[in-house]
Amino acid sequence: MTTVVPPVLMHLRPETGELIGSNGRYEKFIGDLAGLYRDAQAFEGRRDSHDGSPVYWVESSDTQGGEGGLITGISVLEPGTIGEEYYMTRGHLHQKSDRAELYLGLSGKGVMLLDSLDGQSVALEIGPGDAVYVPGHWVHRSVNVGTERMSTLFSYACDAGQDYGIIERAGGMKSLIVIDGDGGWASRPNPDHTGYNL
Amino acid sequence: MTTVVPPVLMHLRPETGELIGSNGRYEKFIGDLAGLYRDAQAFEGRRDSHDGSPVYWVESSDTQGGEGGLITGISVLEPGTIGEEYYMTRGHLHQKSDRAELYLGLSGKGVMLLDSLDGQSVALEIGPGDAVYVPGHWVHRSVNVGTERMSTLFSYACDAGQDYGIIERAGGMKSLIVIDGDGGWASRPNPDHTGYNL
Repeated sequence: MTTVVPPVLMHLRPETGELIGSNGRYEKFIGDLAGLYRDAQAFEGRRDSHDGSPVYWVESSDTQGGEGGLITGISVLEPGTIGEEYYMTRGHLHQKSDRAELYLGLSGKGVMLLDSLDGQSVALEIGPGDAVYVPGHWVHRSVNVGTERMSTLFSYACDAGQDYGIIERAGGMKSLIVIDGDGGWASRPNPDHTGYNL
Repeated sequence: MTTVVPPVLMHLRPETGELIGSNGRYEKFIGDLAGLYRDAQAFEGRRDSHDGSPVYWVESSDTQGGEGGLITGISVLEPGTIGEEYYMTRGHLHQKSDRAELYLGLSGKGVMLLDSLDGQSVALEIGPGDAVYVPGHWVHRSVNVGTERMSTLFSYACDAGQDYGIIERAGGMKSLIVIDGDGGWASRPNPDHTGYNL
């Protein structure tokens, strides 16, 4: 049977991190991010002194479902560092791993960090007006390497799903995005990375 | 077999209507648009006096193909009117009609005009920072109701395909987007519309 759902008009508000007209939201707080950063002591210090506001959040619209639908949302990540590492999202691979995702930079200065399952690592800088196409079969996360909120618009298939555990099981992604000591960022091999097992 | 293609970094340039890093482009000229507007005399006059620049064009990136891939592009439509009607794209329904599409307004002032196959007609204004989600089973076109170039970012599944003839076969879309005599736009029933036959 054909299900026809209404079109959706949404308004992006990067300054407040909102997608007006969306129908879902989740937030990640500092306490949710244990194990994400290599410097456990720096993480604990940050966690104990944190003001309790979310470190990152997503507002999204998902109305069609099924094979043909697309989920659209805004992803917002506060600036900061823990040890040498910049603030980042957990990252994921799509459960249907051939499903692609589009990210469009809206505010701030970020890096889209990508690992292919066959061992490639790519870091692409993304700011307002830049778009990153994440093809299928790439693990990906956002990293805020600036001093302001980083926000992106994203779109991916409703049936894609997410494997959020894949990075943890691999000891982190292949590369770390760290402060370079000169106000910028650098990509460095992660000595804990063990490779991916689906 | 799993095909892994590289991520793609692109840069949107709404001021020039470019998507830097894309790998495809098509243009529509005034001579390509015969039959699109109701006022044939006004159309012929415009065609005969036109400077030959494209009326609208698309630059897009399509690298993954297959079921999981997304096509990403910029759609750019010059401002103008022919008779009472504002400049518009031909419009389409996806060949796999359940495939959705996302549009994000980048510049100018437009209308996303949508007809469902079961007889609904919706007109949504879209400008910078507005996003329109076009669910599956909706015929859709862009209309430039402003005085500047209208540009949008779009994303849809690589396997969606387009039926560009559906609107012509139906005598046009259900509604016309016309000048309202007060500097704005209005939606009015199209007396030529016969309903859709796939």
